[in-house]
Parts: sequence; structure tokens; C-alpha cells
Amino acid sequence: MALLVMKFGGSSVCDAERIFSVASIVKSAFDEGNQVVVVVSAMGDTTDDLIEMAMSIDKRPSKREMDMLVSTGEQVSASLLAMAINKIGGRAKSLTGWQAGVVTDTTYSSARIKGVNDRRLMSELGENNILVVTGFQGITRTDEITTLGRGGSDTSAVAIAAALRADRCIIYTDVDGVYTADPRKVKNAVLLDEISYDEMLELSTLGAQVMHNRSIELAKKYNIDLEVRSNTGEKPGTKIMEVISVEGMIVKGVAKDENIATVSVLSIPDKPGIAFKIFSLMAQNKINVDIILQSEGRNGTQDITFTIASNNLDTAVSVLEKNMASIGGQGLKIYEDVAKVSVVGSGMQSNYGVASRVFGALAGKRINIRMISTSEIKISVLIDKVDADKAVSAIHDEFFR
Amino acid sequence: MALLVMKFGGSSVCDAERIFSVASIVKSAFDEGNQVVVVVSAMGDTTDDLIEMAMSIDKRPSKREMDMLVSTGEQVSASLLAMAINKIGGRAKSLTGWQAGVVTDTTYSSARIKGVNDRRLMSELGENNILVVTGFQGITRTDEITTLGRGGSDTSAVAIAAALRADRCIIYTDVDGVYTADPRKVKNAVLLDEISYDEMLELSTLGAQVMHNRSIELAKKYNIDLEVRSNTGEKPGTKIMEVISVEGMIVKGVAKDENIATVSVLSIPDKPGIAFKIFSLMAQNKINVDIILQSEGRNGTQDITFTIASNNLDTAVSVLEKNMASIGGQGLKIYEDVAKVSVVGSGMQSNYGVASRVFGALAGKRINIRMISTSEIKISVLIDKVDADKAVSAIHDEFFR
Repeated sequence: MALLVMKFGGSSVCDAERIFSVASIVKSAFDEGNQVVVVVSAMGDTTDDLIEMAMSIDKRPSKREMDMLVSTGEQVSASLLAMAINKIGGRAKSLTGWQAGVVTDTTYSSARIKGVNDRRLMSELGENNILVVTGFQGITRTDEITTLGRGGSDTSAVAIAAALRADRCIIYTDVDGVYTADPRKVKNAVLLDEISYDEMLELSTLGAQVMHNRSIELAKKYNIDLEVRSNTGEKPGTKIMEVISVEGMIVKGVAKDENIATVSVLSIPDKPGIAFKIFSLMAQNKINVDIILQSEGRNGTQDITFTIASNNLDTAVSVLEKNMASIGGQGLKIYEDVAKVSVVGSGMQSNYGVASRVFGALAGKRINIRMISTSEIKISVLIDKVDADKAVSAIHDEFFR
Repeated sequence: MALLVMKFGGSSVCDAERIFSVASIVKSAFDEGNQVVVVVSAMGDTTDDLIEMAMSIDKRPSKREMDMLVSTGEQVSASLLAMAINKIGGRAKSLTGWQAGVVTDTTYSSARIKGVNDRRLMSELGENNILVVTGFQGITRTDEITTLGRGGSDTSAVAIAAALRADRCIIYTDVDGVYTADPRKVKNAVLLDEISYDEMLELSTLGAQVMHNRSIELAKKYNIDLEVRSNTGEKPGTKIMEVISVEGMIVKGVAKDENIATVSVLSIPDKPGIAFKIFSLMAQNKINVDIILQSEGRNGTQDITFTIASNNLDTAVSVLEKNMASIGGQGLKIYEDVAKVSVVGSGMQSNYGVASRVFGALAGKRINIRMISTSEIKISVLIDKVDADKAVSAIHDEFFR
């Protein structure tokens, strides 16, 4: 007998038919002798509809009240799914985030799970109930309802799996698993049997929206056996785990990120502490800086160029302009039409061939590289946005053709 | 400084415009120096929509899961109302039934409030917050979400008023207050300034759907100053209290109940214990019996006729038929096309004139009376359903023309 945590997203429960299809997957798992905890998101567009209602009252509503509002979405889908499981002969009980003991911090709308009090979950499982827990939400130590932010149901599932020491946590999605590239864009994209947490984290950060980032960090921390698979059938998907087979492909995937912009601070005096000053300003304003390039400017000055997420651009520019005098720079230059294309795979650092094959593939398509960044398991290149899809295909062909 | 509990029903918060209108009534009360707890129902048809969703899954869903589902309706309206109050410059916080400490028994879908733990409500009020509490729902001692059944938000409001020792509990509705008859049907209907709990209870039971029955019982028990008034303006409505001015009208209202049927058990042997047996059977099956008439049948036997709510008819008939042998009766006779018309008013018993004026009014319209029942504050007559509206008008004209 294994303890399984199964997570279903909003599109998996968007209508009665899909709800029954999920119910039968869940009931089969239970009938095979497993203990089952289901974590479910809000149905289809429910969350968006609720947000729209709030906007009709206030364009900038209190985040506390937003969490009260949108957390109802999962309560609806969880109770309907429990009804469907009961209808087909199972014994299910829905539980809200607070009933399931999911305790978070007090950051409304993007709360972090501090822990899961497993007392009620364990006792309900002991009574042979299938549990349907609302994803995406929790409760603070002072009994306030919180939500985890978009995609937070993945995190709920992994946190519950960790608390219950579940044998497996299966994330059911619209896709069959994790591919070497976006299968809608790259027709040779290959479904991976397995991938490591770190590789998955890099892919997730890069916009391969299969799973929520924080959920993978949490799975890595507690070493949870994760699996991503399709919500339509019983095909095996992709296993995400700590150590994967040494043999086989080094490159695990190619992904792009178009939500990116570069900022250059021009003609900075070449003296210590200036770069520190710039990046401290970014950090104070909660702006993550990704690739950094320092180059020689005119008359012994330097230019510092770095990439940030597009939605941070306005803040970054206004902060830098306000502090330009103390930085000593001569102005800013902004590029928004850029994309980052990355190749992810463990052991890449010790395989010098990978980088040169990436550069070769791009050169073959006459794609210009603006910046380069490498890590243990990733090589990223910054290129013009118009070239992004072509670059992904070229690199993917290089490794998977 | 007074502590007010203000309750708004579903039609009062059915869209953004109405929500803002409620928000401004609430904020005005707060700005006048009062502490304010608002109790709110689900928006417009939300509850019906949720029930419809459940029916698409299971025609007879688990009541526990139904309560999980429908309780989301008030959470939505409460958070939106809190947003609206904040938007117009108030300081509001929404609270679910469990956050507000409303503890109920475990009868899902028609739970009874066992008490309100006022700790959080009092501390939030102490911090100068306007509180918006979800009506209609509570939590059991084992952390299960329950609902109080249709109209339960009135009961929530009164229970919270009792727990907080509120100075007043105001029920805002679609009508201006309590009338001497249904103003949509009787054009001379008069708005009452005040009415006693008992009179209101009788009118409520009789289908004058201004307030939920249990809420009035509770208000009477804790002697809560109740007021029913319109949700559109600031017109005074009807005060409901223990003792009302001795002067003035004896008759407070005329109401009808068409959800009624009569059952006759025919030719019962005239010996002790048979009537007891019949009404014990009804009680065991949770069927309330209203008017009872015992009359002579053939050959020294008796007929016993009584009225029950129409929706109990099937159960009553099947129980009686099953036990007919031990009752010793010769058969059943059912009438469904009946209505009960009642005149309500304190001190009626000591005013013999009232009954004869009622009978006179009906005779004047040639309306036949099937059964009569009187109490301290009520005279009810059972008549044919086709005559019901005519009877209400005739009696109302007699006392209020």
C-alpha cells in the first residue's frame, strides 16, 4: 500500500465530464490499494472570473480580501470532485486548506507554506477516506485565509506529500510530461522519461510552464518522488528526482524566455563599488538580475549591461535614473526586443563540446549572440526576440535530431 | 456609541452597484460613531447556481459536500462587500462563519447554532474594524463547515447580536418592513411601526417571508432589539420587541399559507390512545401537525382530521397506511386544495369581538370555513385554496379599512 498525492489543475476539472474523468482516475488508484490525497485547483476560468468581480469593485483591492475571495474557487472544485468520487462509489471528503492544516506566512496573494499539520489528514486517511484538498491556499497562525499565488496548487501538493511522507506525488497536466522543447513549436521535441530537480528548476524558470517553480524547490528539499503526466490517460509521464541515470542524454531541454529586457548603464567611472551600488539598488527593489556583462566604454569608463524581467523594467529605470548622479554614469540604454534561449542538462560543465555545439547551431542560422551566461547545468544566450523560435529549433535539432 | 449588527440579504448585494449602496449604509452607521458588524448572504442567485452545479454531478449529493460548496457563496459576497467599504474609505474585514466563531451542531444543510465564540469579533471591533461576516454558515466542534438552511443568515445575524450583546440588530430587506398583509396582494396593507416577537413568529410561520423563523425565536430568547427595514433608504421600518405599546391595533396582520394539506383518518374506534398513536407516528417522522379536528364518524367511531405541510404529505400517508391495522381506522382521506388564513395580534384572546369579525368577513364573501384554530395571538381558518386571496383581503379590509 502506497500513499499517493495526486494533483489536478483547473483545466482537468473545468466541467462535470472532466470532473468525473478525474474521479475515476482517483478511484482506480484507491481501488488498487493506495491511500490517496487529491489536490485540486479551481475549475477552468473560475479564478479569473473572481478577479474580474473584484475589479468591478476596486481596481486595487486589499490583498487579504482578494485571498478570501479567490480561495472559494478551489472549495467549489474540491467539493464537486468529492461528490463525483462518491457518486461512482468511492468514499471521498473535501477539505479546505485550513482544514487540511496547510499553514502559511502572512504574505497575502503569494504566501509561502510554513508547514502542514498532518493530524487531520492522517486521521481521515486512517478512516479509509479519499481526501480532496483545495490547492493554492492555506491559513496563517492567526486564522487568516491566504493564497499561494498562481500555480500554487503544485506547491500545495508537494508540501502535503512531504508532510505525509507520501510515496509519490503525481502532477496531472494538459501535457504528457516534460519535453526537450515546447512540443507546440518544435516538432521533434522528445518526451523525457526522467529529469533531475535542478534541470527541471532551470526549465521551469525559463518559461517551460509545466510546473510551478516553488513546488520543484520544495520537492528537491524533501526529496519527493515527483511525476508529471497527462490527465487524460494512464501513459507514464516524466519522473522528477534527485539523481538520474548517468547514461543517456546530457542535454535535457531547450527553452526560451521572452519576458526579458536588457538595461545598460553607460560610461561609469572605472572605480570599485559602482557595480555593487547598481545591483544593491536592484535588490532593494526586489528586482532579480540575470545575465551581467561588463564592457569597456569610452575614455577609460565602463558600461554595465544586465538582463531583468520585462515587468521590472519601469521600476529599474526609475530607480537608476534617480541615482544616476551617485552612480556616476552618463545614461541608460534599454533593449526590450530580446529573448534568452537556454540549454539545460546536468554535467554540461564537464562537457565542453556542448557550448560549442550551441554556438555552432546558432551561427549556422546566422543568429547573433548578444550575451552569454553559463552555469553547472545551463548555457543561456541572449539573442534578438525575432530569432528566438528559430534558435530553439536549431539548438534542439543539434542535440535531438 | 452603540454596537449594531446589520444584515443584508442576497438581493441587496446582487451586483457591484448594490454592493456599493450597502457599503455606504454601513459606512454611514460606522461614521456616526457605532461599532458595526455586517452579516451578508450570498449574491443574488449564487446559491441556486451552486446547487445546480452540484446537481450536474449528483442528484443526491452528500450534505457535507453541499455545505462545503454553497458556503462559498457568502464568502464571495462578504469579501466583495469588504472591498467596497474599503474603497469608499472605510476599514472593513470579511470573516467566514468559522473565523467569526459561529459554532453549530452537525446537521449539515440545516445546522443549528450552538453558540458564537466572540473572542475574535470583539478583538477586531476593538481595532476599529467594520466586520463583514458570512451569514448562513458555521463550523462544528470538529472543524466541519455547516450551513443553516435557507434564510439562515437572519439567524446568523441574531446569534451574533446576542453573543456581542449588540444594542440593535437591523435586518435590511427588499420590503420596507412588516405589513398587515402582503402588500403585493392587498393594496390597503399598512406598514407596522412595531410588532412583538410572538406576533412576528406567527406571521413568519404563516408564510409572510420577511424573516427567518428561527431568527425570531432566537431574538425572543435573548431579547434582541430587532428592526426590519428597507435596504434602499433610511426610512424607519418595523421594530420587533418583547413588549409593545398597549394602545393601538389589536390585529397586527393577516397572512395565508398555501403549503398545506389535510389528512383524515376515518372511522377509528372510539377508545383512548388512538389519537396519541397517530400523532406519535407523525412526531417520530418529524412531521409537524397543525390544526386538529376530531369528529364523530359512523357507528360510534371517530374521524380525526389534521393539517400538515404539503411536502410532508407523502411521508404521512405512507406511515399511516403502514400502521392502519394497529390504529384501527378504515381508511384515509386527503385534501390538498386548502389554504390557511390567519389573523395575528396580541391580546386577541381577550377580545372576543375579533373572532366574530373574522367569521363575519368570510361569510360576507360566502367563503366556507373547513376548520378553525385559535391561540393566544392567532385565529386561523382553513378554507379552499381558490378563496385564499379573497379571504385575506376581506379580513384585512374588516380590520384596516
